[in-house]
Amino acid sequence: MDLFASRSSRMKASEIRELLKLLDQPDIISFAGGIPDPALFPHEAVREAYDAVLSGDQAKAALQYQVSEGYLPLRRWLAGMMGGLGVACDEANIFITSGSQQGLDYLGKLFLSPGDTALVMWPTYLGALQAFNAYEPRYDRLMPDGGNMTPAAYRAAAAVTGGRPKFAYLVPDFANPTGQTLGRKQREAVLDLAGELDIAVIEDAAYRALRYDGEHEPPIQALDCARSGGIDKARTIYCGSFSKILSPGMRMGWICAPRQIVEKLVLMKQAADLHSPSINQMVIHRVAETVFDTQVEKLVDAYRQRRDGLLEALEAHMPDGVTWSRPDGGMFVWLTLPEGADATALLERSIREARVAFVPGSAFHADGSGRNTLRLSFTLADERALSEGIPRLARILKG
Amino acid sequence: MDLFASRSSRMKASEIRELLKLLDQPDIISFAGGIPDPALFPHEAVREAYDAVLSGDQAKAALQYQVSEGYLPLRRWLAGMMGGLGVACDEANIFITSGSQQGLDYLGKLFLSPGDTALVMWPTYLGALQAFNAYEPRYDRLMPDGGNMTPAAYRAAAAVTGGRPKFAYLVPDFANPTGQTLGRKQREAVLDLAGELDIAVIEDAAYRALRYDGEHEPPIQALDCARSGGIDKARTIYCGSFSKILSPGMRMGWICAPRQIVEKLVLMKQAADLHSPSINQMVIHRVAETVFDTQVEKLVDAYRQRRDGLLEALEAHMPDGVTWSRPDGGMFVWLTLPEGADATALLERSIREARVAFVPGSAFHADGSGRNTLRLSFTLADERALSEGIPRLARILKG
Repeated sequence: MDLFASRSSRMKASEIRELLKLLDQPDIISFAGGIPDPALFPHEAVREAYDAVLSGDQAKAALQYQVSEGYLPLRRWLAGMMGGLGVACDEANIFITSGSQQGLDYLGKLFLSPGDTALVMWPTYLGALQAFNAYEPRYDRLMPDGGNMTPAAYRAAAAVTGGRPKFAYLVPDFANPTGQTLGRKQREAVLDLAGELDIAVIEDAAYRALRYDGEHEPPIQALDCARSGGIDKARTIYCGSFSKILSPGMRMGWICAPRQIVEKLVLMKQAADLHSPSINQMVIHRVAETVFDTQVEKLVDAYRQRRDGLLEALEAHMPDGVTWSRPDGGMFVWLTLPEGADATALLERSIREARVAFVPGSAFHADGSGRNTLRLSFTLADERALSEGIPRLARILKG
Repeated sequence: MDLFASRSSRMKASEIRELLKLLDQPDIISFAGGIPDPALFPHEAVREAYDAVLSGDQAKAALQYQVSEGYLPLRRWLAGMMGGLGVACDEANIFITSGSQQGLDYLGKLFLSPGDTALVMWPTYLGALQAFNAYEPRYDRLMPDGGNMTPAAYRAAAAVTGGRPKFAYLVPDFANPTGQTLGRKQREAVLDLAGELDIAVIEDAAYRALRYDGEHEPPIQALDCARSGGIDKARTIYCGSFSKILSPGMRMGWICAPRQIVEKLVLMKQAADLHSPSINQMVIHRVAETVFDTQVEKLVDAYRQRRDGLLEALEAHMPDGVTWSRPDGGMFVWLTLPEGADATALLERSIREARVAFVPGSAFHADGSGRNTLRLSFTLADERALSEGIPRLARILKG
C-alpha cells in the first residue's frame, strides 16, 4: 500500500542524528554537538521561577491556553531588549516561537514555494537547511564579501526552477558553523542586495550575546530600520533564541519583524500548534528579567576560556596545511584541511581509532561542497578534551 | 514591494480569534471557548513535579536538548496506556507532540499535497481544518452512517483537483463540535472505507477520557490493530492530548502510529522545532503517573454536572423548533435551529443584546453549510451562566 508515500519522504535523512547517536558512547570525546554546557544552566533561577508562577495568581494562566502571538509581558520585555540593540519596536513586532528553529520553519513556510530560491552562505547552519528543505527550495550562494553574482544573475538562475529569490538567510554573529562575524560593510552589502532583489533578510541571531572579544556589531535589522525608516518598513526578520543563554530544553525563541509579518506568523502558529507553552513563556520572562545579564557574563567568561584553550591546543598539535577560524564569540571553530581531504571519511576513522567526534563540513553546504572542512564545538571542551582529544584528532589528520 | 505576498496569505483568517476577543469583555457569558475550567487544573501536582525535576539529578536533562521523538519514560508510559485501550504497542510507536494540534499539522504536512482530498465530517473540529488548510487540500464528506459515496465516487471527485483521497479525519468520541460519539459499527465502517480507498485514518481522541455515561467504545486504532494484525500494519494514527485532563498551557500531546509513520514524523519535527520542551515532557510524565486517573475522575464529576445543568436549562428555556445533542461526554452541546436561521447573524445580536457568546456552526463545516447550527461549551457553565445566560440566549433565538 502507498499509505506511507508522502511529502516528507522527499526530506533528507539527517546526518546529525546519526552523529548524535555516537555521542552516547561514554569514551568518545566529542567536539560535535552544538549544545550549551548544562553545568552552566541557571537551574536555581528556573526552579524558583516555576515555583513562583505556579504558587501565585498566575497559576491558572500558566496552565491555560494562551494567545498565539505569545505572553504579552515577555513580548514587551523583548521589544525593550530589541530597542537596546537599535531596533525600535513594540510588542506588535514580537512573536514568540518554540525555539528559533520553529521561527526558521515558519519563515520557510511563509516565503517558499517549491522551486523558489533561498540565498544562504556556503557553509550555513544545517538546521536552517533542514527547516527550509521541507518547502523544496533551491539554494543559491549569498556572498557578503562580493562575488560575481548580480541581482539579474540571481533572478535568472532562480527562474530556471520556476521560482524567484525569496530571502537571504544568514547568521551574522559567530556563525554556525564557521564562527565568522560579518562587519558593518558586509551587513550593509547584504541589505543592498536584498533591496535590489526586493527580498526579505532572515537574521539568525542565536549566538549574538556570546561575544568574547571586541565590540558588538549592530544587528542587520538595526541597519535596515535606519535605512528604511522603521521596523514596519524594514525587510529584515530577526530570529532570537533563549537556548544558548538560558536553556535549550525550554524551547523558547522569538521573532522580531514588521507587524504585517508577525500577523501572518500568528495565523500560521494558531493552525500549527496554537501557541508555545504558556508556563514556559511566563518562566522565561521571570528568569530573563532577573538573570539574563549575569547569565551572559557567566557564559562569556566560561566559553572564552574554552575557546582560548581550543585555539591553543590546535596551535600546539595540528599538522601543517590545516587552518582554522579564530572566532570572537559563539560556540564553534572551523577547520580547513588540505585540498582533497575528506572529513566525512576522516570522521569514521577518528571515531574508530581516536574516539574523537566532530561534524564534517559538507553537512553545512547546501551544494555538498566543503568536503575538506569540519566543525569543532568548544562549549564542552574540558581539560581532557583539549589535552587528549585534540592531539588524538591531530594524529588522525596527519594520516 | 511584494515581500509580504506569500503562501500563508491563502490561509483563511480565523473566525475563532475574533470570537475570543469578545470573551475579554467581563460581562459576557460565554459558551464559546472550548477550554477546560482552570479551577480544575492539578496546580499542586504540577508545581511539585517542576520542583522535583529541577531539584534532582534530572535538572540538567530537563533544561538541555532532547531527542525529537520525545522523552523515553513518557513514551513508555503512553505505550502502556495505549495497550490498556487495546492498542498493543511500544515506545517506537509513540511520538511526543506540542499539543495534539501539532500532531494534526504534521499529519497534514506528511500526507497532503495541494489538491489532495481529506475526508472529514460535516461538521468537524475547526482547528483540524485550519491545520490542514495550510497544505491546500479539498475536503470531501466522511459519512460513518453510510451515504451515497462509493470509493470510486470519492476517487473520481478527488481526481478533479488533480489529487486523491489521503486520509479520513474524525473525532470519534464526544466530537468537537457536536458531542456525537460513533458506535462500534460506525467505527468499523470508517475502517472499511479507508481500506477500500487505501488511506490513513486520523483518530483525534482529544476528549476520549471525558465520558460521563455509558461504556467506552474501543478506539478505531484498536479495531484496526485487531483486523490488520498489529500496530505496524495498521492504517490508523491516534492523536492524544493532555490538554483536556492535565493542562492545555503545557502543550503536550502524542501520536500513536505505525513505526514507519513515527520515523517520518521524527524527521519532520527535527526540522520544524527540534523537540517539544524537555522539562514539560518530564513534568507531564511525573504528573500523569501520579494523578492522571484521579484527575479524570474529578473532571468527569464536575463536567457531568455542568452538562446536566446545561441540558436542563435548554429543556426549560429553548423555543420550539430548536433541537440539541445529548452528549455522553466531552465539552460540547450542539444546537440546531429551524431551517433558514443564521447563527452567525444571531451571534452578533446575542453579544449585543443578550451578552451571551457561542460559536456559530458554519465555522466547523468545510463546505460552509450548517448556518442554522451553533456550539455551546459547558466546561465553564456555572450557576449564573445557566440561570441567566441560557434564558437570555433563548430570547434571542425566539427572535
